[in-house]
Formats: sequence, C-alpha cells, structure tokens
Amino acid sequence: MKFEVCSTDGRARAGILTTDHGIVETPMFMPVGTRATVKAVEQRELIEIGAHIILGNTYHLYLRPGTDVIEQAGGLHRFMNWYKPILTDSGGFQVFSLSDLREISPQGVRFQSHLDGSYHFFTPSKVIAIQRSLGSDIMMVLDECTPYPCEFEYAQQSNEQTIQWAYESKEAFAKQPPLYDHSQALFGIVQGSVYPEIRIRSAVELVKLDFDGYAIGGLAVGEPTETLYSIVDVTEPYLPANKPRYLMGVGLPENILEAIERGIDMFDCVIPTRNGRNGMLFTNHGILNIKNARYKYDFTPIQEGCPCYACQNFTRAYIRHLFLLKEIFALQLASIHNLTFFLYLVHEARNAILQHRFQQWKQQILENLKVQQETNINERSYE
Amino acid sequence: MKFEVCSTDGRARAGILTTDHGIVETPMFMPVGTRATVKAVEQRELIEIGAHIILGNTYHLYLRPGTDVIEQAGGLHRFMNWYKPILTDSGGFQVFSLSDLREISPQGVRFQSHLDGSYHFFTPSKVIAIQRSLGSDIMMVLDECTPYPCEFEYAQQSNEQTIQWAYESKEAFAKQPPLYDHSQALFGIVQGSVYPEIRIRSAVELVKLDFDGYAIGGLAVGEPTETLYSIVDVTEPYLPANKPRYLMGVGLPENILEAIERGIDMFDCVIPTRNGRNGMLFTNHGILNIKNARYKYDFTPIQEGCPCYACQNFTRAYIRHLFLLKEIFALQLASIHNLTFFLYLVHEARNAILQHRFQQWKQQILENLKVQQETNINERSYE
Repeated sequence: MKFEVCSTDGRARAGILTTDHGIVETPMFMPVGTRATVKAVEQRELIEIGAHIILGNTYHLYLRPGTDVIEQAGGLHRFMNWYKPILTDSGGFQVFSLSDLREISPQGVRFQSHLDGSYHFFTPSKVIAIQRSLGSDIMMVLDECTPYPCEFEYAQQSNEQTIQWAYESKEAFAKQPPLYDHSQALFGIVQGSVYPEIRIRSAVELVKLDFDGYAIGGLAVGEPTETLYSIVDVTEPYLPANKPRYLMGVGLPENILEAIERGIDMFDCVIPTRNGRNGMLFTNHGILNIKNARYKYDFTPIQEGCPCYACQNFTRAYIRHLFLLKEIFALQLASIHNLTFFLYLVHEARNAILQHRFQQWKQQILENLKVQQETNINERSYE
Repeated sequence: MKFEVCSTDGRARAGILTTDHGIVETPMFMPVGTRATVKAVEQRELIEIGAHIILGNTYHLYLRPGTDVIEQAGGLHRFMNWYKPILTDSGGFQVFSLSDLREISPQGVRFQSHLDGSYHFFTPSKVIAIQRSLGSDIMMVLDECTPYPCEFEYAQQSNEQTIQWAYESKEAFAKQPPLYDHSQALFGIVQGSVYPEIRIRSAVELVKLDFDGYAIGGLAVGEPTETLYSIVDVTEPYLPANKPRYLMGVGLPENILEAIERGIDMFDCVIPTRNGRNGMLFTNHGILNIKNARYKYDFTPIQEGCPCYACQNFTRAYIRHLFLLKEIFALQLASIHNLTFFLYLVHEARNAILQHRFQQWKQQILENLKVQQETNINERSYE
C-alpha cells in the first residue's frame, strides 16, 4: 500500500491511497458492507455510484459464513465479487458492543456469539489470521473500544492493553504471510476515550510501531460532538503526515467535514444506509423524511441534479409510496441515493482542498445543510 | 391493441401482442408488480432480464398511493417510470381474498380495506374508471373470483353476476375515454369454478361482448392440478382464436408449460418472486433450496449458463450466506434469477412452437425439472 498527500489546505489533506486492488482518492468515505454486502445495494451499483473502497467486518464474517468458507472461496474479494479495495475492521468494536459475554485478559477477549451463544476467543494474532483469510487490503488491529462515558483509570488501563495488543498484532502481521496474490496493509487504532493525555500516549506508542495507517477509534459512541472534534484536534498532531488517518464510525455530513478540516482522510459510517432504510434522505439542502405527508404529490426527485439512479428516475411521491408500504425497492433507492450523497460530499471536499478553498466551501455546504431538517437524527433502526 | 398468432403447434400458439407501449411476444410471463414495484427488482433490471410487460393491481393501487396520486403523476407508467406495457388486474381477486368484509350486490361489492379498515365500493364502472386513471395498457373487468371448493349453485349464481358485470364493464369502457395519450384494451374474465357447463356458459357470453382478450380466472386457488388443466381444456375451444388468452395466477413451470400446450398465451404469478424470497430457486434441473447446508462450500452459480446478474457474478455459497443472514441482497438476487428463469421458459416455449417441436421440448424440460426437488412448494411467505 502506498499513500501520498497531493495537496493540503490548512490541516485538510487531499491524497491518493494505492492498493493492489486499485487507487482510492482521499478524503474517502467507505460504504459499510459488514457481512459481505452493503445492505440493499448491489456490487455493480457501488461501482456505479463511485465507491472505490468498502468496509467489511472481521467479527461478523468470522461468525458467518465462517473463515473457512471465505478462504475456500479465495478470499473476501472473490466471495463477494468485489475487486476494488476492502478494509476490514478488527471486530474489536463488535465484540464489545454486540456479543453477549466479554472476558478480557492480557491474551485477548473471550466472547459469546450474538447469533448462537457459541464461545470464541480473539487474540491479536488470531484477528490477523482471520484477516489474512479474508484478504482485505487494509486490516485493523484488535483493540478494546471503551464505552462512553468511561472512567479515566479504566481508559488508561485499557489503553495499555490495546498498545500491548498492537505490538502483538504487528508481530503476527510480520509472521503470517498473505494467502492470496495481493499485499495487505495493517492500521493501528488510537484509543483513550475522551482523555487527551491517554490519546496522546496511545498515538505516540502506536507510531513507534510504524503502522501503514492510523485510525482514531472509540469515538462516535455517544460523546458530545465537541468532544469528538477536540479529541481529533488533540490526536492529529501526533500522527505522521505521510500516513493515512481514519476516523472510525463517523458520521453525519457535518462531522465528516469538520474532521476533514482537522486532517482526517478516511471515514466509514452506517448512517447513509441505516438511516436511509428508515426514510431519512440526505440532500444539499438538509435531511428530508420521505414518509412525510408533504411529499404525497411531490413529483420532483429527492434532489435535483443528483446523478444517482433514484434521482434520475423516480419522484419523491413514488419513493414515499414505496416507503409507506415497506417495499424493498424503497430501501434500495434510499441507500443508493444516500451513499451517492456521502461519496459526492467527500469528492467535493477533495476538490475544494485541491483548489485551496476548503474553509469557504465547507461553510457554504454547512449552511445549505441546515435549510431542511425534518428528521430526528436519533431515529434509527439497528443493523 | 393488436394481437396476431404467428404460428401454432397443436393447440400451442406463438403470437405477438402490440400495444402503444411496445410489443410483447407470446407466450408471455408477466412479473407481478402489485403495488407499482416488482418486489426487490429495479425497473432497469426488469428491462435487463427481458420483461416486456408487468402486472399491477387495481385494488392495491386504489388504496395506496390512491388514484389521485397516480393520476397527478400522469398515470402508472410515469409514476413508476416503466414505459413498457402494463396489465392491471381488476382487484376482484383481492377484494375476495384480502379485504375484511365483502358485501356483494348486483351493483358491485362493498369491502373494507385490509390496510386501515376503511369502507369502499367497487362497481364494474368504477373499476374501469380507476384503470383509466392508472392508464394500464390492458385492463381487466371486475369479476367475482369464487373460492375452491365452491358449490355448483353458488358458482352458477356468481357467474351470472360476473357476466352482468362484464356487460356493464364493456359499457363503461365505451363511455369513459382514456386519460392519457395511449389506448387501453379490456379483457373479460371467464369464471365458473370447476364446473364445465358454467365455464362454457361464461366463455360463450363473454365472447358475445367482443373483448380484446379473455382471461381464465378463478383457478390456482387450491384445486387439484388435473382440474386446472381440464378446465382449461374445456374452456379454450370457446375462446376466439384471434384473441389472446390469459390464465390468471398460474403458476409453476410445469403448469405454465401444460397450459401453453392447451392454447394459453399469457401468464402471471408471484411464485418466482415470493418463493424466491424464501430461498427457492428455479433451475433447468429443478428447484433448489439455497439455504440447504449442501451449498455452504458450493462456489458454482445457481445455474451454469444462466445470463442473469446473480448467476454471472455470485456463487451458491455467497447467496446462501446472504439468505441465512436475511440480507436484502439475497432477495434481490433470488428474484432476479427466478424471473429470468420464468422469462427464459416462455421464450424457449415460443421458439419450440415456432419450430413445431413444442411437445418434444416440453417433455425434455419437464424431465429435467424433476432432477432436483428439494423444496416443499407450499413453503411460502405471503405478499
């Protein structure tokens, strides 16, 4: 994997990430394909809307269909017929948020599957091995994702464990060769909850290990938005300029733009697909709730000028009809549109950085986004 | 609307139906798009798999989104962005099978919406008016679809009512001009339960009204397959050779082939989509239940050589994985594949008729279809 910063504008960066499965321009947004599918969106549609990289999940894929199935398929790319880059999350977050039992020890974490209650044990080395079987272009280390709120002492102690696991991950990464004919990169994950000094120690220690890239994890877990931004502010100066930075699980359009301004290159979030499936549609002029009665006779597209299949072919009235009847096609159209919007957003951000007008562009976008705000952002279904 | 029989082979017919929205070769299979969407399949995918006509439903569309919405959209074609032909069922079947209360009088049928309990009244004339608002290329008359089993006397009495309604429908059709810039045809529906004499009377009376085509209704409602075939045998000779014949709601591949042999031109059925959503996949070698453990490591397509998006890109192992996790993409792929199979089946039937080898071809296909039969055909979810 290669990463090059092409241009900066303040702390904001426009870069190019090169993998054996192709290049990705940054800032990038990664559609979430947890279980080897981006919900309700076909792989050819991901290509169509300009997704150049997607995310898979180690915890979910390890449980179903199982590492053996994906290995026999020849890796995750072949299994799901997606030949652009894939990043796989380590499963740390899912072990801590989804599974029924968690026992952390210095060796790793024992947990019960949320699907069938079976017992499993993840070590840093095992998580690397699973990701070697998956063959993702970018692998993530096993970490403990602390909840919010989290006591200082616990955060500190947990962080030391996560640093130790990062060492072990790097070691396992060196020992376990790739299974397929492409190379794989490994990212470290900065933890430390909302505490600047722990975040800084985490970053400093991880950077010593010379990972291919650095994620900021443990955010977007319920803390105030200002805290999210301030933790990014605190951490970013300690991350090497020549490596990609990934803010995990973020977020809303405004969060993404604020983080880009603070030097972040990579994002993933289920909001466009999950909230889309609830009828929350993102536009240049804010969020609209397509189930609203005001769209009953609205024969305009979700957003004028949007190039996506939904906007080029169907009206708000039609999509509202599909949503009210819970038709599957509603989920497809909403997901396609919202992902198109998020990909457009980071693409435009990149252009603005290249043209050194990011600040100005961001202000304008944020103002426009406030025009229409019909939906409680917390109205969610859970994947 | 124009209809021309190009070739016959025994009683089997190959024809061409011409509408203002394009031509459809017969025998044809119509994917079911009850509520202005073929479940889990995009309109552009219907085009891709070779669907030349789809079915909509008057009862459902009248209730949601409502006739006013579709009329303001400029008709059903524009509302759903589908510019090939549409046939709309009259809603007779749905009033009798879905709604909560039904009071039949000579004027029509009063019923309660299955969605919100509201009261509605359908008359033959009103059902034409709704279909004028929808703008379907082929409209169906209001009929009473008798259940199975049905007493002779009730079937006879009901049939007289249905004949009377057919007169009124034809009258309303003449009086109510189309709302859009294309013409619409009107089909009569032969009823009479399982009783040959009532079926014959129904056919004879309807033919006097000179409809644009004739449907055989009230079948595929639970009667034995042999009864279905024998009623088609009894009815067909009374239908004019120069008009299309439509066997409503049929059926499995073998039912369709047997009916084609008996002179039927048009079919619709939810089986490919509904059963597909349950993991029942149709192939040349029979039905397979993709959830079966035997496909866990099966990296071949659903059916070798099938040109559909599912078979060209994904393996049984992958599709099984999606099904076990109830991923939406599973429903999309299964629906696309099964519809492709049904459309291929009638297309091949047509070729066989044109080449005067229908019998022989049918025997071969039916033998192949028996090779693999893993699924209880009655294992269904209900739309």
